[in-house]
Amino acid sequence: MVSDAERLARAALARLGEPGDLVLARFVNEHGAEATLEAIVSGHFPGRALDDYQTRLAANDPERDLAVADRAGARLVCPGDPEWPESLDLLATAGAVDQRGGPPLALWVRGTADLRQVTLRSCAVVGARAASQYGLYVAAELSSGLADRDVVVVSGGAFGIDASAHRGALAAGGQTVAVLASGVDVPYPRAHEQLFRWIAEDGLVVSEAPPGSTPRRPRFLIRNRLIAALTLGTVVVEAALRSGALNTAAWAERCHREVMGVPGPVTSTTSAGVHRMVREGAAVLVTDADEIVEHIGRIGEDLAPRKAGEERSRDALDPRSRQVLEAVPVLRAGGVARIAEVAGVAADDVLGILGHLLLLGYVERQGNGWRLSPEERARRRHASTAARGG
Amino acid sequence: MVSDAERLARAALARLGEPGDLVLARFVNEHGAEATLEAIVSGHFPGRALDDYQTRLAANDPERDLAVADRAGARLVCPGDPEWPESLDLLATAGAVDQRGGPPLALWVRGTADLRQVTLRSCAVVGARAASQYGLYVAAELSSGLADRDVVVVSGGAFGIDASAHRGALAAGGQTVAVLASGVDVPYPRAHEQLFRWIAEDGLVVSEAPPGSTPRRPRFLIRNRLIAALTLGTVVVEAALRSGALNTAAWAERCHREVMGVPGPVTSTTSAGVHRMVREGAAVLVTDADEIVEHIGRIGEDLAPRKAGEERSRDALDPRSRQVLEAVPVLRAGGVARIAEVAGVAADDVLGILGHLLLLGYVERQGNGWRLSPEERARRRHASTAARGG
Repeated sequence: MVSDAERLARAALARLGEPGDLVLARFVNEHGAEATLEAIVSGHFPGRALDDYQTRLAANDPERDLAVADRAGARLVCPGDPEWPESLDLLATAGAVDQRGGPPLALWVRGTADLRQVTLRSCAVVGARAASQYGLYVAAELSSGLADRDVVVVSGGAFGIDASAHRGALAAGGQTVAVLASGVDVPYPRAHEQLFRWIAEDGLVVSEAPPGSTPRRPRFLIRNRLIAALTLGTVVVEAALRSGALNTAAWAERCHREVMGVPGPVTSTTSAGVHRMVREGAAVLVTDADEIVEHIGRIGEDLAPRKAGEERSRDALDPRSRQVLEAVPVLRAGGVARIAEVAGVAADDVLGILGHLLLLGYVERQGNGWRLSPEERARRRHASTAARGG
Repeated sequence: MVSDAERLARAALARLGEPGDLVLARFVNEHGAEATLEAIVSGHFPGRALDDYQTRLAANDPERDLAVADRAGARLVCPGDPEWPESLDLLATAGAVDQRGGPPLALWVRGTADLRQVTLRSCAVVGARAASQYGLYVAAELSSGLADRDVVVVSGGAFGIDASAHRGALAAGGQTVAVLASGVDVPYPRAHEQLFRWIAEDGLVVSEAPPGSTPRRPRFLIRNRLIAALTLGTVVVEAALRSGALNTAAWAERCHREVMGVPGPVTSTTSAGVHRMVREGAAVLVTDADEIVEHIGRIGEDLAPRKAGEERSRDALDPRSRQVLEAVPVLRAGGVARIAEVAGVAADDVLGILGHLLLLGYVERQGNGWRLSPEERARRRHASTAARGG
C-alpha cells in the first residue's frame, strides 16, 4: 500500500525532476520519496542537481496536480500500487542513455483500465510520424490483428504510425495504451484530442510528466523507454535512419524484449531504418500479426503457422514419373516410344508410369497414344502465371 | 587438356542422361567419360539406368551437336578446360535433391567471354517471373549497381526478375551470364531471343542441355544449382512462397554461398518468400548494391558504409544544454529565471549554457531575454516533417 504522503511526495518529485533523472531516482531508491523531497526543500540534497530541482520548487503543488489529474479522469500510479507493472523494473538494469533512464518515479494514468493488467500481454507498435500510406495501412492492419489475438497495442501519440496503430486496434475492439511525452491532460498533437479520449475509454493514456506539461523534445526520447518496458515486444513499422522509433527499439533491446521490424520497399526512405535493424540482426523481420504473437507469446503456445505455398500433387511424384509427365504431349497424343525418348526413361517403364499418371488424373489415352488430361491442361494454364524461376 | 574423344564422349553423355543425373556423374567420375559412353553403347552399364540412356542412343550424334553449337557461336566446356570454373566442384559435396545434383558433365557455352574469368567475381540475381513493377525496378537497379562495381550478374533467362537483372547490368555496360534450361541456341522464352544475343556479345549464355533442347520443367530446378554454384552469392529480389528462385537460394546455401534477399511490402505476395527466408535466417536482408558487394566481397575489402542519418549538431550537446535549448521560447524572448524553471536547470548555470548556445548559433538575445536564432527556427520547421516518434 502506498501512503498519501508517499504519493504526494512522488507527485512533487515528478515535477521537480526531469523524467528519467537517474540522480533523483537513485536517491529515492535509497532514502524513499518523502525523505528525498524533504532533502530538496531543505537544501540538503547532495550535489549540484539540487539547484536544478529548486528552480521548480516555487511552482510545485502536488495536491493541485492530483486534483487536476482527477478532474481529467487520471490518477498517479506509484511503485507499491497493485496496478504498478513489474515490467518497469526492467529499466533498473537496462542502463542509461545521456545519463537518463531507470524506472519512472510514478506514472500519471488516465482511463479506467488497470495498468498492470492491460500491459501484461501487450506489444508496442511504433514508427515514423512521416509515414507512407503503406506504413499507415500496415500499422492499422497489424494492430487490428493483434487486437483480434487479445494483444494490447501500446504506442506513442504522434501522427503517422502511432495514431494508425491505435486506430487499427480500437476499430477491432481492442484496448490500447498511449504513452505521452506531455501530461495526460494535454493532447499533443492537438488533433489527437478525440483519439486520446477514445483510447482512455477502454484503455489508458499514460505519462511520466505532470498534468499540464507541454511536450519537450528530450522527453520524447526518454518516454520511449516506458513504451519498450511496458510491453513484451516492440514492432517498428516504418522508421527512417534517424527515427525516434529506432530509439524505442533500442530501449526494448536493453530491456531484453523482442524487437521486430516490418519491411517495406527498399526504395522507401521510411523503411531504411527498419531494414538496417534487420540486416544487422537487431530486429527480427515480421510480416503479420501471427508472426508477432509468435515472438511475444509464451514459448510453443503461439507458434505462427509456417507460410508454405499450396502443395501441388506433382511434388509427390518421383523424378522419373515427372520426367515422363513432362514428355507427354499436351494435345496431340504421342506414342510410348516417343515419350520414352523425350523423357529419357526406358520404354518398358514408361507404360507403367503412364498407367500410374492416368490413375492420378494427369494424362489420358487417345487412340494408341497419350496426352495430358483436360484437368492437367487447365492446371498448367493456371500455373503459367505463377513464378517458376525459369 | 581435354582430348577430342573426351569432349565428344561428354557431348554424347550430356544428351543421353538428364542434367544432374548422379548415377551417370558418379560412373563418369570413376571410369571416365569415354569408358562410360562405351558401357552404355555396349550395354554393360550397370543397373536399370542403362535402359533409360539407351532410349536416346538412336538420336545421339555428338559431332552434329558440336557442329550445331559451333554455328550458334557456342562451344562445349569440359572439366580440365582452362575456362572450367572450379566453383562448380562445390556441387560435388552440395548434396542432391530428388536424386539429382552434382557438377555438370560439361557446359554448352555461347559467347566470347571466358566462363571461368567472367564468373570469378559474379553474383546471381534471381526472382519471380510474375514480378511486380517494384521488383523489376529493383532488379535492374541492383544489377546496374553491381555492374558499376565490376560484379558480373548471373541469372536465368525468364521473364520478370531474370530479364530485368540482365537488362539493368547490360545497360550499365556490364557483362552478364544467362544460364538456361533449354539449349543455348533455343531462345526460351522466344521473346528473349534478342536479349540472349545481347548477353552473348560480351557475356555468356550457358546450358547443360545439348543444342536444340527445348526446356522441360524438371530442368529449370536442376539448372538452378549451376546459377548458385557459379556465383559468389545469390540475391533473391522477389519470390512468392513457392518460387523457383527459393530453390536457387537453397542451392546457394548448399554450396556455402551467400544468400541474400531484398525485402518488399508485406502486402505483396511476390515478396513473401523472401521475407520468410530472412525471417528464418536463411537469407540476409540487403537493400542496395553496396550491401551485396559487402557480402560477396573479400572480407574487409568491400565493407558497405553503414547507413546513418544526417548528424545533427544538437546531438553533440550535453543533456542539460539540450534541456535549456528546449526551454528557450521560439519567438517571444523569455528571461533566464523562466527558462531555468521550464528547463529544470539551475538559473546560475542557465546563463552560461545560453552563452554557449549563442556561440553555437542556436539562440539569440532580444532585450533582456532569449529566444531561438532564425537558423534554429528554420531548422525546426524543416525537422518537423522528419520522423521523431513523438
